[in-house]
Amino acid sequence: VLHREIAGSEIVSAADERRRRILEAARACFARSGFHGASMQEICAAAKMSPGALYRYFPSKEAIIEAIADEERLCAVQIVREIEGEGLLLDRLIDCAMAYLDYARQPETSELFAEINAESLRNTDIGRRFKAIDEEARLFLRAALADAAARGEIGRDIDLDAALGVLMAACDGLVQRQIFDPHLTSGRVRPVLRRIIAAALETPDRG
Amino acid sequence: VLHREIAGSEIVSAADERRRRILEAARACFARSGFHGASMQEICAAAKMSPGALYRYFPSKEAIIEAIADEERLCAVQIVREIEGEGLLLDRLIDCAMAYLDYARQPETSELFAEINAESLRNTDIGRRFKAIDEEARLFLRAALADAAARGEIGRDIDLDAALGVLMAACDGLVQRQIFDPHLTSGRVRPVLRRIIAAALETPDRG
Repeated sequence: VLHREIAGSEIVSAADERRRRILEAARACFARSGFHGASMQEICAAAKMSPGALYRYFPSKEAIIEAIADEERLCAVQIVREIEGEGLLLDRLIDCAMAYLDYARQPETSELFAEINAESLRNTDIGRRFKAIDEEARLFLRAALADAAARGEIGRDIDLDAALGVLMAACDGLVQRQIFDPHLTSGRVRPVLRRIIAAALETPDRG
Repeated sequence: VLHREIAGSEIVSAADERRRRILEAARACFARSGFHGASMQEICAAAKMSPGALYRYFPSKEAIIEAIADEERLCAVQIVREIEGEGLLLDRLIDCAMAYLDYARQPETSELFAEINAESLRNTDIGRRFKAIDEEARLFLRAALADAAARGEIGRDIDLDAALGVLMAACDGLVQRQIFDPHLTSGRVRPVLRRIIAAALETPDRG
């Protein structure tokens, strides 16, 4: 039984490894050529796999994009969960924002995010899929802010949805701008972003 | 002489009108399919012109993109010039930001901006062209902020480049997010953005 389990997990792990390789190759291709521009041939070449081998894992480009969307969703969930910790909401919000910006600094991630943003504005299945992930994260953050407003940790009379939308927009923009603006290092962005979050939410602490 | 002048200006105006029609069709195609995805055939069809007629105005897709970049540059210059007026810098900055956001609400403009942002991260001629326009606007705004810091209108000890980068990122992000987030109307964004600009720049007025 033990032997079969090990053999089974080795098979799963080899399949997982190939799946991982395809997804990484696809992310690079989508970052470079866009969701519409990148072809399955390009992804096969980048993954160093034959079309036959690749199609065993993903029957279409849409299936690959769907798998990437699932990964991004898990990642977004993990990052917004940062605000569930202990301590001041402002501290947790800035940790959450910086975790997101640091994640986006990984190679090809900002280009992929830019492509996701562009596609989210288009009325396509892919666009709607990514917009739904964003809305899920927004509602999670909104609930945390509403709790904090009820506790008096942020201004009771602020326009919560407008403030949250502007802060999420600032993070969207930073994900892209931090790549080409040499001034936007984590260490220099953090204090500005902290002042901005405090001001948007009218928290007592603006330190 | 008068007759020739009038006839001449009519010819110019008909040519201008055709140029305008091509550029508008191209903007719509690039917004929909991206710079790489859109073809000259697609642009001809959208402009309702034959390839022969279109090529008389623009010899290549690159020439069309270059003309769009020139238009965007002029528009950016006009918008950042808003901060040269009278009154408090904070008032002029918020007017400048809102003028930019209102401009971007025009049909297809946000999709085109998203495409420009995505392309700016790519190491391509088009990407570099749009990045240069952004840097020109940034340096113009930076000079105005440095003057205001010297006058004591904004905090003397703030990290000017980081603050400006974060504020520009917030506007980049809002251009896109305002299209799909129904809470982000001009009237609701303005007070949040005003608090945020004041906090980023540590201006005395945070009203």
